[in-house]
Amino acid sequence: MPTIEVWFEFASTYSYPALMRVEALAQRAGVEPSYKPFLLGPIFASQGWDNSPFNIYEAKGRYMWRDLARICEAEGVPLRKPSVFPRNGLHAARIAFAGGQQAWVPPFVRAVYRANFAEDRDIASPDVLSALLIEQGQDAAAILARAASPEVKAGLREQTEAAQRRGIFGAPSFIVGGELGDELFWGNDRLEQALTWAAKP
Amino acid sequence: MPTIEVWFEFASTYSYPALMRVEALAQRAGVEPSYKPFLLGPIFASQGWDNSPFNIYEAKGRYMWRDLARICEAEGVPLRKPSVFPRNGLHAARIAFAGGQQAWVPPFVRAVYRANFAEDRDIASPDVLSALLIEQGQDAAAILARAASPEVKAGLREQTEAAQRRGIFGAPSFIVGGELGDELFWGNDRLEQALTWAAKP
Repeated sequence: MPTIEVWFEFASTYSYPALMRVEALAQRAGVEPSYKPFLLGPIFASQGWDNSPFNIYEAKGRYMWRDLARICEAEGVPLRKPSVFPRNGLHAARIAFAGGQQAWVPPFVRAVYRANFAEDRDIASPDVLSALLIEQGQDAAAILARAASPEVKAGLREQTEAAQRRGIFGAPSFIVGGELGDELFWGNDRLEQALTWAAKP
Repeated sequence: MPTIEVWFEFASTYSYPALMRVEALAQRAGVEPSYKPFLLGPIFASQGWDNSPFNIYEAKGRYMWRDLARICEAEGVPLRKPSVFPRNGLHAARIAFAGGQQAWVPPFVRAVYRANFAEDRDIASPDVLSALLIEQGQDAAAILARAASPEVKAGLREQTEAAQRRGIFGAPSFIVGGELGDELFWGNDRLEQALTWAAKP
C-alpha cells in the first residue's frame, strides 16, 4: 500500500481541516497515512519569528481566519476561533509521537484539533489531554508519563529537526516518497493532490 | 453580469498561472474580470521585507518553485524559471493600469507573464514591452509615453495603496463585492472558489 507522511502541528490552523479529513480521504485513495507530529516553533524561530506569522503579519492573519472559516464551512468541519492563538501543542505532540502508529492516535489527533479549534479548550492542559485520552479508551496516566520521558522528548525534537532538514517550513505538510526522491506538499489545499501523487502507480 | 477584481503583480510567481487562466475561467463562470495591477514592493516593505519572501525564506522559495512547476504542468502552462527573480514589473504594471479595461489589456497581461515566466525575457525593458504591445496591435510609443505620465504613476501608486487598505498582502488576490461587504481570496489556488463566489446569486 502506498504511504503518505502527514506532518502536523497542533497549533496550526490549516492543519485542523487537513487532519480532520486525511484519514477518510487516504482510505478512499488507498493510501496509508503515517502521522508525523512536529513543532513549528523551532522552525519559525530559525526564520526569525517568535510568534505565528499570522500574528506577526496582521493582514495575513485576518485573511487566514476568514479563509479557514470558508474552508471549514465547505468541509462541514466545525470552527470556533480559539480565544488563545497559537495554543501550545508541545504536550499533545509528545503524546502523538509516543503513540506512534497505534490505532488510537488518529482519533486522538482529531480530538485534540477539535478541542482547540471547535471547543476552545486549552490543549496544553494535562487535564484536557487526559480526558481526550480516556475518551479513546487509553490509560491516560501511563501515556502522559511516557510522553514526558526523555526518549519521547528527544524523539519529538529529532522529528522536528528531520522536518526542517527535509524542507518543511509550515504545516500541514505531506511527503510522498518515490524513486525520484521525496515530493513535498504544503497546506490543507494540497492534501488531495498529495494523495493523488501517492496513489499513482 | 457579476464581476471579480483580479489583483496581480507581474513579478509574482503564483499570479502567472492565475492570470493565464482567469479570462477563460471567468467567461465560463459568467463573471466579468476587472484587472487591477498593483505593486507588491511597497506592501512587502511595510512588512519589513526588502525582497520577495521566496528569496528571504529559502525553504519556502525552494518549495514554491517545485509547487509552481507542478501547477503549470497540470494546467498546461509553460514554465521556465526566470534567470532573475523577482523581475521589476513596474513599467508593465503602469502600462496595464494605463490600459484600464481596454480589450488589449488581458492578452497583453498574459504576454508579459509569458515573457517573464516562460521565455525568461526582461519585462522591465522598454524594448520588450514595446514588442509585446506591438504584438497586440497597439501604438507602443504612445502607450509607453502615457504609462510614464504623472497621472498613471500616481494612479498605480494609489491603486497599490487601495490594495493594502482593502487587506491585500500578496498576489494574486481576488475581491468579490457583495451586500455583506468584500470577500477576499488569495492565491492561484483560490481562483475557482472566488469565481464560484462571484457567480452565485
